[in-house]
Amino acid sequence: MAHGGGGRLTQMLIEGMFQSTFANPILETLHDGAILEVNGTRLAFSTDSFTVSPLFFPGGNIGSLAVHGTVNDLAMCGARPLALSSAFILEEGLQMETLWQVVQSMQQAAQTVGVPIVTGDTKVVERGKGDGLYINTTGLGIIPAGVNISPRRARPGDMVLINGAIAVHGIVIMSVREGLQFETTLESDSAPLADLVSRILEVAGEQVHVLRDPTRGGLSSTLNEIAAQAQVGIRLQEADIPIWEEVRGACEILGFDPLYVANEGKFLAIVAREAAESVLATMRSHPLGKESAIIGEVIAEQPSKVFLRSRIGGLRVVDMLSGEQLPRIC
Amino acid sequence: MAHGGGGRLTQMLIEGMFQSTFANPILETLHDGAILEVNGTRLAFSTDSFTVSPLFFPGGNIGSLAVHGTVNDLAMCGARPLALSSAFILEEGLQMETLWQVVQSMQQAAQTVGVPIVTGDTKVVERGKGDGLYINTTGLGIIPAGVNISPRRARPGDMVLINGAIAVHGIVIMSVREGLQFETTLESDSAPLADLVSRILEVAGEQVHVLRDPTRGGLSSTLNEIAAQAQVGIRLQEADIPIWEEVRGACEILGFDPLYVANEGKFLAIVAREAAESVLATMRSHPLGKESAIIGEVIAEQPSKVFLRSRIGGLRVVDMLSGEQLPRIC
Repeated sequence: MAHGGGGRLTQMLIEGMFQSTFANPILETLHDGAILEVNGTRLAFSTDSFTVSPLFFPGGNIGSLAVHGTVNDLAMCGARPLALSSAFILEEGLQMETLWQVVQSMQQAAQTVGVPIVTGDTKVVERGKGDGLYINTTGLGIIPAGVNISPRRARPGDMVLINGAIAVHGIVIMSVREGLQFETTLESDSAPLADLVSRILEVAGEQVHVLRDPTRGGLSSTLNEIAAQAQVGIRLQEADIPIWEEVRGACEILGFDPLYVANEGKFLAIVAREAAESVLATMRSHPLGKESAIIGEVIAEQPSKVFLRSRIGGLRVVDMLSGEQLPRIC
Repeated sequence: MAHGGGGRLTQMLIEGMFQSTFANPILETLHDGAILEVNGTRLAFSTDSFTVSPLFFPGGNIGSLAVHGTVNDLAMCGARPLALSSAFILEEGLQMETLWQVVQSMQQAAQTVGVPIVTGDTKVVERGKGDGLYINTTGLGIIPAGVNISPRRARPGDMVLINGAIAVHGIVIMSVREGLQFETTLESDSAPLADLVSRILEVAGEQVHVLRDPTRGGLSSTLNEIAAQAQVGIRLQEADIPIWEEVRGACEILGFDPLYVANEGKFLAIVAREAAESVLATMRSHPLGKESAIIGEVIAEQPSKVFLRSRIGGLRVVDMLSGEQLPRIC
């Protein structure tokens, strides 16, 4: 932290510290959320603090993002969201109008999902000790019977699906910060995935092995984590990964590899090969999955490595994000 | 917020905004946490963000406080804590050693309670956009059968109990900030109340009507809230309210009324009159309740008002905190 970058080293130190100190059987599952069993009901429990800068961006704001982010973490456990908490840290001097807009967006987002915000907290800190506002949302969800999602369930032969084009959220945030103009209006893909996920679980049940939203660190980091946890290899087809032309262009201008850029409202599903086509059809029939694609497969060789077959046929290793990650993207 | 004080007006505006926007049947109960029913099991769900300044103080630090605070909010719903989440907002430049100490304290506090920290999140913000670190903890607990706690259950004839001396935490924090020295070493009363609460619930069950920890706003504000919610009056005996001499002295020096100073590790129990003596005995037999006392009673007259009978026999109204509250006390 002396050098304060938030890069991979910092992240490893922090996560190493938390993982080793708080060690317990539930924490160990390395999920987007914890899974608790209470009197025979499986509950998913997930927390996220949102520090996105700027507070408002094309396609959303910190309030809608805070609802979508936690709803999606629950969905990635296979859970239907039951309730959210929201806790605000407000910086002295924040405009009441700004707070009002954010709170309205949270409520609209929660209403769309059908999840109530049931408890909350507000703290005010002095000017210069915050950045307008930060929001923590923590969510509770119920995992239906017949659902069994875990990064460790990825197995050779499984197919890797995504529900649409990558790198949109990260590029939108960076573009706003850098003052870039696009010819068309690019908006964050922030969206609640609970409904779409519940549909594919209805169709494919336990054949859905892994669900994960590739937020911070992007597609590559997320798939590397899964490959390491399941001790499998993953091979992607570059030509099959949906990406919008203007996002690709912006990545070139900004110097980012889109495989590492944060997404919101996107998720990876790793499913049994025989279920892949029906899951794909289900995803494509949903408003949040029109551009869904099968982008790769799980292989037995080279456990914990992710490969990309390029458009011209070469095969290269796609590593974890190793340098700076985009700070305050969510 | 234009004047940014965090006083009563600001608080009312914010709470009014949240209450009205997020309105739903569960939120309406005005508890320290929400109560959710899942397949016949009653769950308590509570969130708090901790922004205490300084991070370390006599008797604890932001880490232990963050565990105790949320455990206690669950206990005030009558719940046994099941799991906690923890989310960190770290300011760039925070010493790793500081974070390490805080994380160790969290784990020790959680271990003492026997509640696992099962999921977490870490965000890093730039220098000058935070204040070292902020922690959100959100907790999940199970409410046993035969427990029915609600501020609305206070009824005339009930007795008001507290588990020890008031105003300690607030005075410790303010003393550290103001650089005051005491002859003896005063320490924060921050402590986990789940075990003590579960004992009185075993003894008195549904005869325990209300539980509430008088944190921000102190004893007076908390009792005023209960009086308003239950539409009852509350009459306190000043001579019966435990307060340490050095705390009283510090309050005089700092110009605070101890009835309005924040507590941690203290709770108010409002219980049926016939259960009061056995609850008091149970509380006094617990390490965290040695100085427990019956401090007042619930009355039918003057609904939503709190009265204090002074040592010299006068009766005065004790209002909600109306000026500035102590900022960043927890």
